[in-house]
Amino acid sequence: MFFEGSEKKVEIVAHGAGLRGFGEAFWSDLVERARARVLSKIYTDQVDSYLLSESSLFVWDDRFTLITCGRTTLVDAVVEFAKKVPVDRWDLFIFELKNEYRPQLQLSSFDDDVKRLKSHLSGRPYRFGAIDAHHLFLFHSEKPYRPHSEDRTLEILMYDLQGDAKDLFGKPPRDKLELRRRAGLDKVFDGFAIDDFLFDPCGYSLNAIRGDFYFTVHVTPEENGSYVSFETNLVGSTDTDGIVERVTAIFQPRSFDVIGFNCAPASRVGDFQARSWVEKKLDCGYEVRFQHFEAPWSQKTEPYLIQELR
Amino acid sequence: MFFEGSEKKVEIVAHGAGLRGFGEAFWSDLVERARARVLSKIYTDQVDSYLLSESSLFVWDDRFTLITCGRTTLVDAVVEFAKKVPVDRWDLFIFELKNEYRPQLQLSSFDDDVKRLKSHLSGRPYRFGAIDAHHLFLFHSEKPYRPHSEDRTLEILMYDLQGDAKDLFGKPPRDKLELRRRAGLDKVFDGFAIDDFLFDPCGYSLNAIRGDFYFTVHVTPEENGSYVSFETNLVGSTDTDGIVERVTAIFQPRSFDVIGFNCAPASRVGDFQARSWVEKKLDCGYEVRFQHFEAPWSQKTEPYLIQELR
Repeated sequence: MFFEGSEKKVEIVAHGAGLRGFGEAFWSDLVERARARVLSKIYTDQVDSYLLSESSLFVWDDRFTLITCGRTTLVDAVVEFAKKVPVDRWDLFIFELKNEYRPQLQLSSFDDDVKRLKSHLSGRPYRFGAIDAHHLFLFHSEKPYRPHSEDRTLEILMYDLQGDAKDLFGKPPRDKLELRRRAGLDKVFDGFAIDDFLFDPCGYSLNAIRGDFYFTVHVTPEENGSYVSFETNLVGSTDTDGIVERVTAIFQPRSFDVIGFNCAPASRVGDFQARSWVEKKLDCGYEVRFQHFEAPWSQKTEPYLIQELR
Repeated sequence: MFFEGSEKKVEIVAHGAGLRGFGEAFWSDLVERARARVLSKIYTDQVDSYLLSESSLFVWDDRFTLITCGRTTLVDAVVEFAKKVPVDRWDLFIFELKNEYRPQLQLSSFDDDVKRLKSHLSGRPYRFGAIDAHHLFLFHSEKPYRPHSEDRTLEILMYDLQGDAKDLFGKPPRDKLELRRRAGLDKVFDGFAIDDFLFDPCGYSLNAIRGDFYFTVHVTPEENGSYVSFETNLVGSTDTDGIVERVTAIFQPRSFDVIGFNCAPASRVGDFQARSWVEKKLDCGYEVRFQHFEAPWSQKTEPYLIQELR
C-alpha cells in the first residue's frame, strides 16, 4: 500500500469575516469538499484546531490554513469557500503544493489547480526548486498585502526516516501518549494543548495550539518512502530557538526541506547543509525561502525490491 | 510546452533469432507500437542503428536495445515482439524506466508496466535510488544468464544544463555539423559513423556506431527542465578512459546519474561526487550500479515563474 504524505496547503486571509463564527458544520463540509473529514477539534480563545483524516485545519477569525495530503482535492474546498466569502473580500490567498512521490495518483496537478484558481482570482504561480529535485509549487494572489510584522511560518518537510525514528513510527506503540513521549513531541514547545491521532495500520497526526500559535505534525511512515511534515507560526525572523534542529533530531530524516515565510532559518543544521535554496520577496508581502538540506556524507544502499504490486 | 526527456529502455537477448534479418518493416512497425517512428538508419557489419522520433533502436543478430522518451508506450513494443519471438526463446530481458519529471503525463506507470510484463514472463522489479530522489526502476527476467565478459553498458543521465551547454543546445545552430563540432560530440570517441537529427523548435538526437559498438545522445534542452542522456557499450570494467568526465564536460549538468552494467565508474568526477549509490549483482548476471552525482557547492536561485499555462 502507498499513501501520499506530500501535502497541499491553502491560506486565506479575510479581515472582518469572522471565520470562527461560521461554525463546525461549515468547516466540516468544507473539509469534505477536499475529500477529507474532521476527526476532532480543540480550541483556544484565538484559534480552532481541527485534526483531519488527511492533515489539518486551523481557523482564526480573520484567516484559515487548510493542509491536506493523500489524494485530496484542496481546490474544491477553495471554490466552495468562495461561495461563502466572495473572492473580492480576500486580502490574501496562498496555495502551496509540494511535489508528490507519485503525482500520477493525484486527481489534479498544480497546472490543473492553477487553471481553476485563475478562473476565480488573478495570481502568480511559482516553482521553488529545480524540477528534477525537491520543489514547492506556490500560487499567490496579486492584491497588495502587508503581513503583520510577527506573521511568520516555518515548515519542515522530512524524507526517509532513519534509525530509531524509523522504528518508532514504523511500528508505533498503540498508546498515543507513549509515542508522543518516546518521540519527544511533547518537548518541541512548552504549554501547548495537544490533539493527536494514531492511524491504523500506521500514520500519526498531531495538532497543538496555545493562544493564537499552532504547530502540527503529520507522519507517513511507510517503508517505501516515509515522509513527515512539521509546521508552526511560533518562530522568530531567524530560527534562534533551534526548532529545525530539534524537530529533525526527532525524525532523523535522510534529507529535508525548510520553508520560511518571513523567517530565514540557518543554512546549516547540525551535519546537514542547504544544498540549494530559492528565495523571493513575493508581491503579496511575504519573503519566501525554500531550502533543501542533505547530509554531507555519501550513502550506499541496496536497491528496493518492489513488493507492493498486486 | 513540456517534453518528457526521461527514458524507458528495453533490452532483449535471443541467441539464434537472427534479429537483423527481420528487416526494416518489422522494426519500423515495432517502434510504432511504442508510439515512436523511425527517422533514419545506418549500419555496420554487426549492428543496425535506427534514429527515432523519440530516441533510438539498436539491433544486433542476437539482441536489441530500444530506448524511448516522451509519452511512448514501450511495453506495447515488447508485447508485439513476443508474437514474433516467443518469450521462452528470450535468454535475457531487462526493462528500465527512469523516474520522470512529470509522471502524471505518462500513459502508464512502472507498476502498470510490470503488471503487464509479468503476465508474459516472470521477473523481479527493483527501484535503484530513494523514492524522493533520482531513481531508476528496473525489471529483469529470472532465467539464469551469463553475460559475455566484455558485455558492459554505461549510461549517463544529465539534469539542468548550465553555462555554454545550456545556450548552445537551447538555441542551436541550424547546421547539425556545426552543433556537433561546437559541442565536441565528434570527439567523444574516434572513428564512429554518426547519424543525428535536430528537432524543431529544439531537441537533438545522435546515434553513432563502429563495429558492434554504439553510443547515443538525446538532448531535451527545454528551459523548464533540461535533460540529456548518453549511453554506450564501449566502456571498460572501470571508466579508465574518462568517458563520464568527457561527456559531462560537454553538457555541464547541475547533477547527473551514472548507471553501469558490469562497469564501475569512479565515485568522483571532477568536482562532482556520488551523493548516493545503489548496487546489486542481479540474478540475471549483471552487476548494476546507480550513482547520483552532485556538485559540492550550494546553489542559490530565484524561483521559476511558471508561464507555460495555456
